[in-house]
Amino acid sequence: MGDEVVLLDFWPSPFGMRVRIALKEKGIDYEYKEENLSNKSPLLLKMNPIHKQIPVLIHNGKPVCESLIIVHYIDEVWKDKTPLLPSHPYERAHARFWADYVDKKIYSTGRLVWGAKGEVQEAAKKELIQCFKLLEREVGDKNFFGGDQFGLVDIALIPFYSWFYALETCGNFSMIHECPKLVEWAKRCMKRESVSTSLPDQYKVYDFILELKKKLELD
Amino acid sequence: MGDEVVLLDFWPSPFGMRVRIALKEKGIDYEYKEENLSNKSPLLLKMNPIHKQIPVLIHNGKPVCESLIIVHYIDEVWKDKTPLLPSHPYERAHARFWADYVDKKIYSTGRLVWGAKGEVQEAAKKELIQCFKLLEREVGDKNFFGGDQFGLVDIALIPFYSWFYALETCGNFSMIHECPKLVEWAKRCMKRESVSTSLPDQYKVYDFILELKKKLELD
Repeated sequence: MGDEVVLLDFWPSPFGMRVRIALKEKGIDYEYKEENLSNKSPLLLKMNPIHKQIPVLIHNGKPVCESLIIVHYIDEVWKDKTPLLPSHPYERAHARFWADYVDKKIYSTGRLVWGAKGEVQEAAKKELIQCFKLLEREVGDKNFFGGDQFGLVDIALIPFYSWFYALETCGNFSMIHECPKLVEWAKRCMKRESVSTSLPDQYKVYDFILELKKKLELD
Repeated sequence: MGDEVVLLDFWPSPFGMRVRIALKEKGIDYEYKEENLSNKSPLLLKMNPIHKQIPVLIHNGKPVCESLIIVHYIDEVWKDKTPLLPSHPYERAHARFWADYVDKKIYSTGRLVWGAKGEVQEAAKKELIQCFKLLEREVGDKNFFGGDQFGLVDIALIPFYSWFYALETCGNFSMIHECPKLVEWAKRCMKRESVSTSLPDQYKVYDFILELKKKLELD
């Protein structure tokens, strides 16, 4: 193919992990470039001048930004291998709905669970658990969100598995107690090489969060 | 076709307008059901139990929620007429990026322009104008965001044209002064029947905002 694929990423980013997983599912070779978010590279600023955020996928010199848009792009360009979205429009809309739900809720609510204190933290914890319970009900007894096929919603949500320990420890709750079936789903996902090789260790993420809290003077 | 299409909507909603425009572009007959957002119908609560928000498109009894997801759905189901997304994956990603930008920025920033006061309002006004200037730069000298073809980004943004007068009056600024080319683009869009028949009158929207402010006790 002669495709040149570069990923600008940051290792603990759940959004970056989504792209890593999608690329791996499709078997695409790429160059991984770690960004220092306190000192962003000229390449990142050039490739994503609007949001200045990772992940950015650079395909033959052209940037694609925003993780779920990148996953769509990967699925559309490399369409012959391992479809990541269902083929029927209704099922596609359904998958997009839940991926969007994850996008809107989990990171921002989780941010307050590890970064806030007192009542704000308590409220965020309740809300986060509610979100996870909704997602657990949605996956139900299926193997993956789309059924037997691993796909968009799994890719959107599974990166947060690497943040579970940090969220549980900072928020003082237990995912296995609150959402046992969602944890089972996560473990099923982790059996896929695309996922297990794309997610960092939960304890390493926790250490990163502790460092970040210090840096942001949240402690 | 025998398709039964119902739209749960609320007349001043920019998100609802997107769906009206997309349906009209595709020439789809549908039943419009106005929702009372202070007293949501059992149908809305049943069809969108997660967000409980309009718009909801009900196609042969099955709901699709979230305006941009609905526009994608309409484009994929009625794919033979007037494509709303480009065919090339890179251009599709580019269109999705800007539609997502509009989604993340305009409503929430605009909300503070009409609903906040003092410094918060001033900061929001500056930010909103910045957003519009970025979008103006993106449309540039093209007829529409995608070039000559009216599409996703136009559909995402044009509904806010019906809010311009309210935003300008509440925020004390002038769109024609700040972003003359964006206003030209909006007028071009308004020449399309799909747009002109889907957007309410700007003064009617302004009256609605004044009523809403009273109700929310913002004045």
